Amino acid sequence: MERVPVLKIGDILLVSIQIDMEDQVALQLQEDLAERIVATGVHGVIIDISALDIVDSFVGRTLATIAAVSRVLDAETVVVGMRPAVAITLVELGLSLPGIRTALNVELGIALLGKRDVGDEPADDEDEDDPAAVTTS
Amino acid sequence: MERVPVLKIGDILLVSIQIDMEDQVALQLQEDLAERIVATGVHGVIIDISALDIVDSFVGRTLATIAAVSRVLDAETVVVGMRPAVAITLVELGLSLPGIRTALNVELGIALLGKRDVGDEPADDEDEDDPAAVTTS
Repeated sequence: MERVPVLKIGDILLVSIQIDMEDQVALQLQEDLAERIVATGVHGVIIDISALDIVDSFVGRTLATIAAVSRVLDAETVVVGMRPAVAITLVELGLSLPGIRTALNVELGIALLGKRDVGDEPADDEDEDDPAAVTTS
Repeated sequence: MERVPVLKIGDILLVSIQIDMEDQVALQLQEDLAERIVATGVHGVIIDISALDIVDSFVGRTLATIAAVSRVLDAETVVVGMRPAVAITLVELGLSLPGIRTALNVELGIALLGKRDVGDEPADDEDEDDPAAVTTS
């Protein structure tokens, strides 16, 4: 059976999805990821979907499940590399990937995860707009 | 056509090969990688083959070509994640992947690349045999 590899890079697990997410592959990935999160104690998961032309409702649900499981295990999930056409299709399908954060590429995803204070503080809710962005002169 | 995504992480390009390396896929990957190396100016390429059950002579040659092209573009290639069975098969086939460095996983590959002095010092002149290094005066 085909299997999506889970790569550990620092405090992050990186998954690059390139094969069709059939049921067994998706289930195996969920299991592998959960096991690796527990084994490595990372706090971030990045899922790259830049190779995917299509994200249907099954893949959308799989991503949501992975994010939910990761959250329970104290790791945050960021989906990166979504193609514009995929984003349009997702919205048209009514799938807005609730609970999943996105970034344009892996580096921005890592930066997004880095903003979270890992370990010490609970991540509170003041992310959205950044009052500190006022220009200092 | 299927395409292997090239992910940029810091000073490294990461490629996780999960699909069958047919001719077109391999050629496309070589082109994509060369273009990304030039566009991003990275000094390291990591190719993860942990998803591959089989590395035949074609894949071996592809990896060697990628490493050679990268080297010409001032980037070093490390192949990571090779399964034990694949290593045995490679040696039995007489393919020892000359010119390719290997590491057990992505993190060790990054560490291996990090040992190289990137950026400041010109890495020229004392490469073993380089008659072209004679200064023009």
